[in-house]
Amino acid sequence: MPPFDLPESDPFSPHNLPYGVFSAPGATDRTVGVRLGDHVLDAGAAALALGSPYASLLARPCLNPLLAAGRTTWSDVRRALTAWVTVPAHQSTVAEFLHPLSSVTLHLPFEVADYVDFYSSEHHARNVGRIFRPDAADSLTPNWKHLPIGYHGRSGTVVVSGTDVVRPSGQRKAPTDPAPVFGPSVRLDIEAEVGFVVGTPSPMGSPVALADFRDHVFGLCLLNDWSARDIQAWEYVPLGPFLGKSFATSVSAWVTPLDALEEARVAPPERTHELLPYLDDTGADAEPGGYDLRISVAVNGHVVSEPPFSSMYWTAAQQLAHLTVNGASLRTGDLYGSGTVSGPAERERGSLLELTWNGRDALELPDGKRTFLEDGDVVTLSAWAPGPDGVRVGLGEVAGRIVGQALG
Amino acid sequence: MPPFDLPESDPFSPHNLPYGVFSAPGATDRTVGVRLGDHVLDAGAAALALGSPYASLLARPCLNPLLAAGRTTWSDVRRALTAWVTVPAHQSTVAEFLHPLSSVTLHLPFEVADYVDFYSSEHHARNVGRIFRPDAADSLTPNWKHLPIGYHGRSGTVVVSGTDVVRPSGQRKAPTDPAPVFGPSVRLDIEAEVGFVVGTPSPMGSPVALADFRDHVFGLCLLNDWSARDIQAWEYVPLGPFLGKSFATSVSAWVTPLDALEEARVAPPERTHELLPYLDDTGADAEPGGYDLRISVAVNGHVVSEPPFSSMYWTAAQQLAHLTVNGASLRTGDLYGSGTVSGPAERERGSLLELTWNGRDALELPDGKRTFLEDGDVVTLSAWAPGPDGVRVGLGEVAGRIVGQALG
Repeated sequence: MPPFDLPESDPFSPHNLPYGVFSAPGATDRTVGVRLGDHVLDAGAAALALGSPYASLLARPCLNPLLAAGRTTWSDVRRALTAWVTVPAHQSTVAEFLHPLSSVTLHLPFEVADYVDFYSSEHHARNVGRIFRPDAADSLTPNWKHLPIGYHGRSGTVVVSGTDVVRPSGQRKAPTDPAPVFGPSVRLDIEAEVGFVVGTPSPMGSPVALADFRDHVFGLCLLNDWSARDIQAWEYVPLGPFLGKSFATSVSAWVTPLDALEEARVAPPERTHELLPYLDDTGADAEPGGYDLRISVAVNGHVVSEPPFSSMYWTAAQQLAHLTVNGASLRTGDLYGSGTVSGPAERERGSLLELTWNGRDALELPDGKRTFLEDGDVVTLSAWAPGPDGVRVGLGEVAGRIVGQALG
Repeated sequence: MPPFDLPESDPFSPHNLPYGVFSAPGATDRTVGVRLGDHVLDAGAAALALGSPYASLLARPCLNPLLAAGRTTWSDVRRALTAWVTVPAHQSTVAEFLHPLSSVTLHLPFEVADYVDFYSSEHHARNVGRIFRPDAADSLTPNWKHLPIGYHGRSGTVVVSGTDVVRPSGQRKAPTDPAPVFGPSVRLDIEAEVGFVVGTPSPMGSPVALADFRDHVFGLCLLNDWSARDIQAWEYVPLGPFLGKSFATSVSAWVTPLDALEEARVAPPERTHELLPYLDDTGADAEPGGYDLRISVAVNGHVVSEPPFSSMYWTAAQQLAHLTVNGASLRTGDLYGSGTVSGPAERERGSLLELTWNGRDALELPDGKRTFLEDGDVVTLSAWAPGPDGVRVGLGEVAGRIVGQALG
C-alpha cells in the first residue's frame, strides 16, 4: 500500500500525525518523525526539502524545540505537515523521506524536565482504599475530592516503549516479618496511565489557570508507571512512593498533539464536592476538560483490561492548575501522568493490584495464571480516541518486557 | 588586601576552592568561577590564558561538563587551580581574571537533573513524630532505622541563593474546618539541609555501592528546602509532600568539592539496628561516611540555631546506595538533600517547626516574635567545616527573602 493511500479506518491517517523521534535505517542521528500509517516521515528532511520555516524545529534530535515554540506555532506546523502528506504536489517531494516504521529505531521523543504523577481516577483510588484499608469508613482519603493528589517521580528513568525493564531489588517487610529482607521485587505491577507533555513554560510565581491548559500542554502519550508493590508498601510512610516507582517509567514513542484530539473532548464525571475556584470546571464557560481515550492493557498479547480515560475524576487541566497554584514554574518537557486509569467495571482496572485484588484472584492467561508480573512478561498498553467522521486516532502503544536480574 | 595574600584563617583559602558560576561586571555571559577569599577567579579565562587542557571544562556556562568529567579529572583540575592561585609565576598570569565577589552576579551553579530529598536526621524525625503523633509508642515510623526515607522533589524550582521566594498559596484545612480554604500559606518554614551533587552518571540497572560514593558525588552545597506546613499537612496523605515543597528550593552559589573536605570526614552516630548489606557501613573497611559541617541558621541576621551535620544518622553514601539499589540510574547534575539537619539540643534544630514546637513557643528576635516566616524575612544558612591545620573551609551561604504575593 503506498504510504499516502491510507484507508479511512487507519488510526494513523492525516487526521492524527503524532510526533516522535527516530533514527533512519543504518543511521545513528536522531530526528523528528511524524507517523503516517505504518510509515514515519522524516519531518526535518521534508521541511528542508520544501524550504519550510519549520525546519529549525523539526530537523532536531528531540521534540523540545517544537514543544517550546508555543501553541500558535504548533498549529502552524501541524497545518504544514497535513499539507505535505495530503497535497499531491508536496507528496511527491516528501515521499522519499518516508521510512517503513519497521525499519527505524524509535527513541524517547523529548527530554523530560520534571515528572509528576497524579492519582486521579476515583475508581482506582477507591479500589486501593478498599484493598489496603478495608475497615475505613470511606475508601478515599479526606483530601481526595478537594484536590488532585500528586507527587514527583524520577525524570531520569523515563524510557521509551520497547525498553526492557529490569526487575528492581529492594527492601520489603510483611507485617509479620521481624525485620525487612532484601531481594528482587515479588509483586511487580503496572499502572496504565496517560502522560501529558508540557510545551510552553511558565515563570515562578505565576499559576496557570484552568482555561490556559491548552496554551501550555502540547499533547499526550501513553505511560506505564511500573510499580514494585512490596518495596512501595514498606517505604512509603510518611513521604510517599520512592524506590517502588523510580526504577522505570515507560512512555509511548508517539506524542499525539491535543489538536488531533478535538473530537475526543468530553465532560468529566459529575463533581460531587464543591471545588475551590482555581479547580472549578463546572461553569458554563469551562472547557470540557476530559478526553475520551480507550485504553487496552495486554499481558503477553492477551488483553486483560480496557480502562476508559473518560472516567477520570480530575482532568489534565485541573492537574496543571493544581501543580502550579503554589507558584511552581513549568519547563518545556515537563511530563505529568494522570494516575492509574481504572473504570467502574472489573475489566476496566488499570493495575494488576486491582485486577487480582492484591493477588487474591489470579488472572487466567493463555500461558498460565498471573497475580503479579513474571520475568519475560511483556506488558503492552495501547489506545485510540474518536476522531472526525468516525475515524480512530491511534495513540500507539507503550510496551516493556520484564527482565530478571543478571546473576553475580 | 591583595587577593593572593589571604590570612590562614580565611574560610576561602586555597585549601577550599569551591566552584560556582558567575557573570562578570557588565557581562551577561556565564562562566565557571572559583572563590578565593572575597574574590572570584574566572577559571575559564585563566585556563585559556595558561593554555590549560581544562579550559573546555571551565570556560562553560555551568558546572555540568566538569561534573561529568569524573573523579580523576576533578582531582587534576583542583591541583591545577591550586597551582594557579599559589605559585607566583601563575598568580601573575591569573591576577587579571580575579573579580571582587561584590562586583559579580552569581547564578545557579549547575543544571539540576533529578532532585531527591531525604529525611535522615534522627533528631529531626523524632521531633516531627513527637509533634504530630504525640501518642505514638515510637516517634519514628517502623521503617526509619532500616532505610533512609526519601522522595523526589521538583528540579525546576531549585534556585540560587539570593533569589526571592514568593509566599506560596494553596489549600489548607485545619482538622476542625468543615472544608479546605485557599490562600497564602500562613505556616511558611525552612529546612536547613546539605545538598550533594552527582557528577559521574550510572546506567540503569547498576546500583552504586557504598564504597563508590566518592566516584559519583562531586561535592556539596547548602540547601534550604522551603516548606509550607499548612499546605503540606492537608495534601501529603498518602503520596507525600508535593505543593508544600515544590514552590522553591534554594541552594548556595558555591559547590564545595569533597576533596576539600578530607579533614571533615567523621564516623556517623552508632547504628542501633542491624543494616542490610547494601547499607552496612559498620565494617572495619568502611569509609567513615559522615561529615563534620557546622551549620548556622539566621533569620534577619539573628542566629537562631546551629545544627551539627555530624549528627545525621544516615550518611550521603548510604543515601546514594539506597537511591540506586533498585537500579535507578544517576545523571550528571542529580542533587539530593540530606533532610533537615537537627542536632540533639534545642538550639540545634533545623526548622521553625521544631524550634517553635509547631508554633507553640515563639522565637524572640530583635525585630519581634516569630513562629513561622513573615513577608520580608530573610533566612540565611551558612556553614563551615574543619580543614587542615585548624583552618576553616567555608561552605558559603544560602539566603532567601520571603516576598508577599502581588495584589492581583
